[in-house]
Amino acid sequence: MEGAPRSGCPINLTLEMLGDRWSLIVIRDVMFGNRRHYRELLNQSEEGIASNILADRLKRLLEAGLLSKRDDPTHRQKSIYSLTEPAIQLVPLLVQMGAWGVRHTPVSEELSIRARLLEQGGPALWEAFMAELRAMHLGAPVPQRSVLTELQAAFEAVLAQKARPARAPRKRSAP
Amino acid sequence: MEGAPRSGCPINLTLEMLGDRWSLIVIRDVMFGNRRHYRELLNQSEEGIASNILADRLKRLLEAGLLSKRDDPTHRQKSIYSLTEPAIQLVPLLVQMGAWGVRHTPVSEELSIRARLLEQGGPALWEAFMAELRAMHLGAPVPQRSVLTELQAAFEAVLAQKARPARAPRKRSAP
Repeated sequence: MEGAPRSGCPINLTLEMLGDRWSLIVIRDVMFGNRRHYRELLNQSEEGIASNILADRLKRLLEAGLLSKRDDPTHRQKSIYSLTEPAIQLVPLLVQMGAWGVRHTPVSEELSIRARLLEQGGPALWEAFMAELRAMHLGAPVPQRSVLTELQAAFEAVLAQKARPARAPRKRSAP
Repeated sequence: MEGAPRSGCPINLTLEMLGDRWSLIVIRDVMFGNRRHYRELLNQSEEGIASNILADRLKRLLEAGLLSKRDDPTHRQKSIYSLTEPAIQLVPLLVQMGAWGVRHTPVSEELSIRARLLEQGGPALWEAFMAELRAMHLGAPVPQRSVLTELQAAFEAVLAQKARPARAPRKRSAP
């Protein structure tokens, strides 16, 4: 992120710009969780991000032009973070990252349903999601379809399913 | 990569498994450059990877099951690294990473032509490329189409184009 890039290769430059893995975690939380304030990003983090790391990554993402920051008109002394157009265009990359994780890592069921739906939906769904993000973050017209609402409903359905007591519970060892 | 995962989110787990950015650079070089020996990975690195970082990332990638290593029958005392099936399935992720880099980072023309072609080719081209990688790395039957040959030809065409003296050269400042 600092100094001359190591090479002009687009994969290298993308990796340099996104910095370390925490940067993409922060973008994920703004994008999918609509966490727009520092406190939300800190306190609702599934991965328990440390406050100094969060502050550093927000600063870097602002400098890299992936986030923008403005005063929140509804909360005195609070700032609201928004995705920029380049960050919104990370949707296909994050979808592929989620799709790969679903296949090759020990994901939890409730945290992977959204990744599965986004992969299955293909480019048409990603475009609809990006249109919704442009409305939420860039002031574009609000589209009819809310992909976030669909994803959230699927997530909650999995949680409800898991909370329901099984009819014939059996003790099974972990795979 | 070590200890309990921070969360069961597929994006987080993918980021944890891929480790830092050098891991994906190494996979890129094995995948697109067919660099299979330690020395090739070290000496042909566009980004100038340091030998201790390369050795560490190869070790981590082997442990994570993204690379395999065997004796090279044609070179005594040399090892050959191969992609595993999970690593081959990173193709769509790397394509999206390259496509994003082409749009939002200062890529060089010669190092971005392959990313452009892979994006334009869409899933059909990615599948053909993965079939070729399975032949090269996993001993699968060799497919008719060689995507690597096509990408290499396009890369060399850009280099040849840039080497040709312009008819009316003008001094232009860098953009």
